[in-house]
Amino acid sequence: MMLRFRVLVRLKPGILDVQGAAVKRALDGLGFAGVNDLRIGKLVEVDVEAPDETVGRARVEEMCRKLLTNPILEDYAIELVGDLAGSRPGR
Amino acid sequence: MMLRFRVLVRLKPGILDVQGAAVKRALDGLGFAGVNDLRIGKLVEVDVEAPDETVGRARVEEMCRKLLTNPILEDYAIELVGDLAGSRPGR
Repeated sequence: MMLRFRVLVRLKPGILDVQGAAVKRALDGLGFAGVNDLRIGKLVEVDVEAPDETVGRARVEEMCRKLLTNPILEDYAIELVGDLAGSRPGR
Repeated sequence: MMLRFRVLVRLKPGILDVQGAAVKRALDGLGFAGVNDLRIGKLVEVDVEAPDETVGRARVEEMCRKLLTNPILEDYAIELVGDLAGSRPGR
């Protein structure tokens, strides 16, 4: 199966989100009222060949630990988007 | 209602994802086989005060057009995460 996963990488609670704060202030300046909080993170979408979801997820988990995220500063969540096998011809 | 939305910002198809390509190559170098594609985007999570989902979504849509995304290079998708007041499961 060719599985597409989505990794949401966020700063850990307590780590100052400088970029988010700057964007929030810019929104205030543009007149957007009622914005209570805004945080900016990273989105990684990865297509992995794996026999099933469990194996694929474990592989993405390992990528996160080894390369995709900074475990000191960041948390991450892995979501399965779907199986591409149906929509892509070939493999 | 205090609604939490998630904005997924991705490079448009056809725009070279340099960062994603670099990360994919690094994964190959670390021995991760079976990674078919990897793209890196931006995750914006925003809490907006709005009377209902339609109004809240329209507001986030306007933020995307005016500030959060670059319409020449980027596409975006807006997802409702939940109502922080409690009637929908938030995360």
